[in-house]
Amino acid sequence: MGCGSLPAETLDRKKVEEIVREVVLKRLGVNGQALQSKLVVQASSRHMHVSRADMDVLFGPGTELTFDRALYQEGNYAAKELVTIVGPRGRVISNLRILGPMRKQSQVELAFTDAIMLGFSNIPVRLSGDLKGTAGCIIVGPKGVVELKEGLIRAAIHVHMSPAEAASFGVAQGDRMKLKIGGASGLTFNNVHVRIDPTSRLNVHMDTDEANACGLHLTKDIEIFK
Amino acid sequence: MGCGSLPAETLDRKKVEEIVREVVLKRLGVNGQALQSKLVVQASSRHMHVSRADMDVLFGPGTELTFDRALYQEGNYAAKELVTIVGPRGRVISNLRILGPMRKQSQVELAFTDAIMLGFSNIPVRLSGDLKGTAGCIIVGPKGVVELKEGLIRAAIHVHMSPAEAASFGVAQGDRMKLKIGGASGLTFNNVHVRIDPTSRLNVHMDTDEANACGLHLTKDIEIFK
Repeated sequence: MGCGSLPAETLDRKKVEEIVREVVLKRLGVNGQALQSKLVVQASSRHMHVSRADMDVLFGPGTELTFDRALYQEGNYAAKELVTIVGPRGRVISNLRILGPMRKQSQVELAFTDAIMLGFSNIPVRLSGDLKGTAGCIIVGPKGVVELKEGLIRAAIHVHMSPAEAASFGVAQGDRMKLKIGGASGLTFNNVHVRIDPTSRLNVHMDTDEANACGLHLTKDIEIFK
Repeated sequence: MGCGSLPAETLDRKKVEEIVREVVLKRLGVNGQALQSKLVVQASSRHMHVSRADMDVLFGPGTELTFDRALYQEGNYAAKELVTIVGPRGRVISNLRILGPMRKQSQVELAFTDAIMLGFSNIPVRLSGDLKGTAGCIIVGPKGVVELKEGLIRAAIHVHMSPAEAASFGVAQGDRMKLKIGGASGLTFNNVHVRIDPTSRLNVHMDTDEANACGLHLTKDIEIFK
């Protein structure tokens, strides 16, 4: 607050309305529905998303992914299918799990620890699907081998939310939020990308490096804010 | 600044002296020596510190550590000696490097990623040497095997500094500082332990999980503050 000539207690009607709207939105959501979203923060282990064409090569023509367990975001699931990734110096990681459903383009998401272990000196930090100019790798499946020309990323930490949740936080698609994690290894992620979709549930995805850095498994003291 | 009755420009002599002292201390250090410390931030890979008694068992009675390369803190070095650590479910990590000089008590420092890989569900976050009540493990050397009853920790992120550097930051032994890392994976470590010693150089030690979470190798945009 500045030091104006009016006393700080003087609030005009417009300001009062703004404050009331903000508080009501936070409590009720934009459509008057109760919005008491629970923030779920999860660590994503390294994994792959596969295209129809690459699935054909890796597991055989026309094969489908086998549902193993549902993920928190509706429609997403861990498949039973596993592949092996081969890095630039011949080092491998086996049992890389595929997440369904299939995508337009294959994509591998690694933590930096995984990437370094495989011999990649640097992989870009990207949002899912933003693959232009990224590195490639070799993927080995039970029926064949695919050379991905691009698709290897470290997924940028992000928060999924519904439009109502976005309104209650006052954020828009592509904004960044902060995620503060308490505890002995407490830290604040300063660049959490906001991804809004009507089907989404309030949910932060970070990778295993980020989860292990902050000791995510050791604390419930978690806060997200603009 | 509050909205007092005096204009903000009015500063008394005491306040001016305080500000001058603060600025001078930041520039000159407490003894009038030039203090232009460069902040060096480093990732410590998993490693072991070994006691005389455990060295005798692992490498043979009376053996000494072999200097390989100097570390940034004076007197510390990476030794050529390597051991293997065996976790609770028989999983192993080979080529665990020993850092010298020898210590009063053996100690193993792992990132959470390492600990999880070895099958430890939880290791405490501690400062070096604070080992009471920590987990143990099996260490295998070329000449023998040691069962550590305790000594397995995740090292808490910390900053080494000289008393002059501490004075310039206005911090005391055991205080916590914040370390802000910029870039695409930018984050702020909120609990950086201050460790002051006359022989120390300004230097943050974090582990590989923390370094990989923030992409330490990708940015020079680093700031430490109270």
